[in-house]
Amino acid sequence: MKILISYYSRTGNTKKMAEAIARGVRDEGATCDLKEITDVEIDQLLEYEALIFGAPTYYGSMAAEMKKLLDDSVKHHGKLAGRVGGAFTSSGMIGGGGETTILSILEALMIHGMIVIGDATIQHYGPLAIGEPDAKVHKMCIEYGQKIARLTKKVFGN
Amino acid sequence: MKILISYYSRTGNTKKMAEAIARGVRDEGATCDLKEITDVEIDQLLEYEALIFGAPTYYGSMAAEMKKLLDDSVKHHGKLAGRVGGAFTSSGMIGGGGETTILSILEALMIHGMIVIGDATIQHYGPLAIGEPDAKVHKMCIEYGQKIARLTKKVFGN
Amino acid sequence: MKILISYYSRTGNTKKMAEAIARGVRDEGATCDLKEITDVEIDQLLEYEALIFGAPTYYGSMAAEMKKLLDDSVKHHGKLAGRVGGAFTSSGMIGGGGETTILSILEALMIHGMIVIGDATIQHYGPLAIGEPDAKVHKMCIEYGQKIARLTKKVFGN
Amino acid sequence: MKILISYYSRTGNTKKMAEAIARGVRDEGATCDLKEITDVEIDQLLEYEALIFGAPTYYGSMAAEMKKLLDDSVKHHGKLAGRVGGAFTSSGMIGGGGETTILSILEALMIHGMIVIGDATIQHYGPLAIGEPDAKVHKMCIEYGQKIARLTKKVFGN
Repeated sequence: MKILISYYSRTGNTKKMAEAIARGVRDEGATCDLKEITDVEIDQLLEYEALIFGAPTYYGSMAAEMKKLLDDSVKHHGKLAGRVGGAFTSSGMIGGGGETTILSILEALMIHGMIVIGDATIQHYGPLAIGEPDAKVHKMCIEYGQKIARLTKKVFGN
Repeated sequence: MKILISYYSRTGNTKKMAEAIARGVRDEGATCDLKEITDVEIDQLLEYEALIFGAPTYYGSMAAEMKKLLDDSVKHHGKLAGRVGGAFTSSGMIGGGGETTILSILEALMIHGMIVIGDATIQHYGPLAIGEPDAKVHKMCIEYGQKIARLTKKVFGN
Repeated sequence: MKILISYYSRTGNTKKMAEAIARGVRDEGATCDLKEITDVEIDQLLEYEALIFGAPTYYGSMAAEMKKLLDDSVKHHGKLAGRVGGAFTSSGMIGGGGETTILSILEALMIHGMIVIGDATIQHYGPLAIGEPDAKVHKMCIEYGQKIARLTKKVFGN
Repeated sequence: MKILISYYSRTGNTKKMAEAIARGVRDEGATCDLKEITDVEIDQLLEYEALIFGAPTYYGSMAAEMKKLLDDSVKHHGKLAGRVGGAFTSSGMIGGGGETTILSILEALMIHGMIVIGDATIQHYGPLAIGEPDAKVHKMCIEYGQKIARLTKKVFGN
């Protein structure tokens, strides 16, 4: 079982979240590739049972660099259906568009026919850091990685 | 495996969609309870591996009658985590708030920690009828029921 | 020029925000009626040049009590077009559905044909408190009231 | 009074909508610049009292090419506050992400502090074509241009 975590990060905050999520995925015994968005080739997307994307909050939705990859993924439209997806973001302030950014990613994954999951106790749509990730966000990211890995195992029967 | 389809319908359009989705669920061999929203008791929600909610599009989000049930479901907050959810709506016009209505339901289910799934070929976030459901919508609803039932089987290991 | 601020509040947090917004509205010389949602009659909505609604974040969208008022406002559908609207919420945690709650209200107001405004410096879609409103949120609410009152003056030519 | 309509269009559908909106803007006596997104320079954004953006529906939010312009507009963050904004999209199917695409643009404009307006009778969040714009969509786009121009006059006191 292979899981991709792909992120776009200028300040390093989103990258730190990606690393913590990767740790959570590996805790569950899954193979995890952690890649900057510019290092991901479209054809590689098909290699993973789960794909998790993270980007800073820019004007209420995912950064253009990430949107470009998702727009280009139309090449394989339909082939990702039934795989598991996730999203996270790093935002400048509370109420600063972080929730809508996560949802913009999840909506794209749903349009690919993918499976997503919420959380009843922590940040509901996906991990959201305000500024630099603190210990609480770090823990939340690890748990999110674990959760996505567990769901992927259930869906793919391992 | 038991799946609940609960709907609110004044004109009958949303009810017809609910019935078609129920048919799809049963096609997959799952037990399906089809209930008007006012016939659902909060404690009953716990009996189902999957919950699908449908409401007409009123001012861009689910009708108050359905929101009341979901607000009241806070009584069991956390206990629905990991179950499968779905949403559908009947809207008066294209661009009339149907997508945001479906998303308002899916967001509530994600906040419960539930699993949702998109569709790569038909209406991406969930079935959406414009006016009275026609043959195309009917077929789409049946396929949505089948899809939710198949996902539920995967997640719950049947 | 009359502005309505209507709120639903169980814990008192949303009410405190409503009071601060009312102060901001009055700072600009506008008449402000501050009412609990259950004290608002549908026909009264027509008396105001601007309507601001606030509710706690319940499952990612406005509380059923507020949705009921907005659903019932279909009685006057079309008559509120061109008036000014606003929204605010009190949420339990960061990433807890506060942004989607504000947007659920703004979407309803847009469907009424109303005018809404964002903010470039503070909480972009509308005031959002995490837990009890602190001094920062209080100030933000006052500024939001001022901003809505100023926009209403521009639109209605005073 | 100057209004910018900027669009991204591959098939020509979004371009046709842009042209109809431009006609509506000019009907109201406002100057309208109609530009492909790649022909807009960031500094030019400041020349307009209103900015209307249109893009095809790609994976539930605005195309990356348009998001890039909006991301880059952070250079002038705050300076567009109080100006009028609008959004439109061309989508492949009903329920195909058209509403969320329009909202992704409007959310970005709100984060700039801009003013947006809904519509009580036609497509509520902004013009949305399914496939090639027909006569009904054409008329709706003209009316949207007129509406945005009238609102801009009110806000800027002409």
